[in-house]
Amino acid sequence: MTRPAAPESALAAIETDALIVGAGPVGLFQVFELGLLDIEAHVVDALTEPGGQCIELYPDKPIYDIPGVPMCTGRELTERLLEQIRPFAPTFHLGQEVTALARREDGRFDIGTSLGTRFVAKTVFIAAGVGAFQPRKLHLQGADTLEDRQIFYRVRRPQDFAGKHLVIAGGGDSALDWAIHFAQEGAHRAASVVLVHRRDGFRAAPASVARMRELCDAMQMQFLVGQISGLETAGERMAGVKVTSPDGLTRVVPAEALLVFYGLSPKLGPIAQWGLAIERKQLVVDTEKFETSEPGVFAVGDINTYPGKKKLILCGFHEAALAAFGAARYVFPDKPVHLQYTTTSPKLHKALGVEPPSFDDE
Amino acid sequence: MTRPAAPESALAAIETDALIVGAGPVGLFQVFELGLLDIEAHVVDALTEPGGQCIELYPDKPIYDIPGVPMCTGRELTERLLEQIRPFAPTFHLGQEVTALARREDGRFDIGTSLGTRFVAKTVFIAAGVGAFQPRKLHLQGADTLEDRQIFYRVRRPQDFAGKHLVIAGGGDSALDWAIHFAQEGAHRAASVVLVHRRDGFRAAPASVARMRELCDAMQMQFLVGQISGLETAGERMAGVKVTSPDGLTRVVPAEALLVFYGLSPKLGPIAQWGLAIERKQLVVDTEKFETSEPGVFAVGDINTYPGKKKLILCGFHEAALAAFGAARYVFPDKPVHLQYTTTSPKLHKALGVEPPSFDDE
Repeated sequence: MTRPAAPESALAAIETDALIVGAGPVGLFQVFELGLLDIEAHVVDALTEPGGQCIELYPDKPIYDIPGVPMCTGRELTERLLEQIRPFAPTFHLGQEVTALARREDGRFDIGTSLGTRFVAKTVFIAAGVGAFQPRKLHLQGADTLEDRQIFYRVRRPQDFAGKHLVIAGGGDSALDWAIHFAQEGAHRAASVVLVHRRDGFRAAPASVARMRELCDAMQMQFLVGQISGLETAGERMAGVKVTSPDGLTRVVPAEALLVFYGLSPKLGPIAQWGLAIERKQLVVDTEKFETSEPGVFAVGDINTYPGKKKLILCGFHEAALAAFGAARYVFPDKPVHLQYTTTSPKLHKALGVEPPSFDDE
Repeated sequence: MTRPAAPESALAAIETDALIVGAGPVGLFQVFELGLLDIEAHVVDALTEPGGQCIELYPDKPIYDIPGVPMCTGRELTERLLEQIRPFAPTFHLGQEVTALARREDGRFDIGTSLGTRFVAKTVFIAAGVGAFQPRKLHLQGADTLEDRQIFYRVRRPQDFAGKHLVIAGGGDSALDWAIHFAQEGAHRAASVVLVHRRDGFRAAPASVARMRELCDAMQMQFLVGQISGLETAGERMAGVKVTSPDGLTRVVPAEALLVFYGLSPKLGPIAQWGLAIERKQLVVDTEKFETSEPGVFAVGDINTYPGKKKLILCGFHEAALAAFGAARYVFPDKPVHLQYTTTSPKLHKALGVEPPSFDDE
């Protein structure tokens, strides 16, 4: 289930050295590389937790090619990176998408999000991977016009569904959790709940599947194997949902609201509208600073392209390191920036909050 | 103490897809990236164990900027990488330096080492960091001509020093271990042992320092604080070593042999003679394949240079990944090479010897 972030729109614009768009592994490591150069960062992500594809697509799947980490899952990698960047205390703005990016007269950037958060940033790092993750939608005639009226891809106010006839589509945790929530005793109990999934097997947590079956056995909800194949309308309103079973039989299930949880899919979205040079849906960057066609706007990770580009997390880490040095000249225009090593630099030790053993070179 | 590797010169040249020069972290990860593409590799290093600078310069010092590894020592990083590349079973040829590289008529490369090992390789990866680690030498008049006759920077045959008057210089483990070895009862006992170090403090293991002091107390050896400031010669032979103490007093210590253990320092060495484009002692590479001016010869890690280059281990990992793809077209000229992911590719799972849980995408 998504937890909507608190709206920040009432607040003044947040001023920052760097705004990072995307909290996947490369966006997270960007915080680290900027932090080493004393550049503070805010991070925006459309998902409600950090990790990007690692969390959305393969939280429990092993990754074998992170250098020095023979095996870790997407979730573990995210946790390791969050621990690594903790000394730099980045501020996360989650569950919102960056919608607007514009150059200001003073050379900085105005950035706005779908929740109304506003930033003024000296530099921008687009680490948006394959784009912002958005709900996969129902591709049926009439579904568009019913969106947010009778067809929903997320639940913002559960109380709106209490006492209604509901059809819930999907086989993951969101579908099962909401089906159970509305079917069982409680303040939000619906008049009826019909869960529709294409097969009698679920990727939701086993405990949720068991609870759902209990509720079906107790006639408190119903589960149908099948696909949503059409909508039954009465005037401008939806009256029912057509469900086609694997044997080809179609029935109409009366419904006042249809909740669809088909998972999330990435969309490049507004990034395509910012006037940055694009090649095959990727942002074109140089290989020296990983800067886009717009000075001060960098792109790192899967979203960029350059000769030889491979979409590997470990390549994004390198890109983030060089982009940080590229940004330093905008953040500190009058200060030369030198490479220092975390193993030997007292300045970096202070930034990292560590005190390594003294170094005796003979 | 160095353990000389077994000479391989009697064997025929070893044929391989890839020869990696340097077993530091980037050379080790190069094995992994080549392995994922089904390219087998042999690795040569001047040191007697893998790890390069991580082992030679900072085995016990923490590194903080390996992405996904909030903290590890140089030794731990080396161990992690050795574990990661184990599925690809590379062959290591240690304690020897690559001395010769030449293009063959068939397009492959002839490579020879200081121990006489010979390779015929389709591709070469120079991951030599700051160069091969070699003993720091004594900068004193006449020291050059006495090298390997009366002045030694490593002990090849300990029996040669038995019964002799020895001066041993240095404050690390090699100096202490050999001083103890020649001072105490045993087949190699010297006529006399005088240890010379610039201060009364050592970076050797505390147990060795304690043992040395015991031997001094028992009059079986002597320790002098001071620097080797000159050599006393009689004709073409060295008769004694001048030692200047911190208070400026110089005395002559009679010596038939002087063993110097001032640590190792890197030398680019023969690599500079291979006709590759060089800029400020770095090998010039492109940023698409990290290939040098010689097709089929790649350079990764601290030894290369390109616009934006930062000498960071994490950058070397990226370079190794792209260089592996660059090499694939020489190793498999007729086969297109596609990027596959360790998380999802059954082919890579087989190569890695792992069997991840089945992937259910809905």
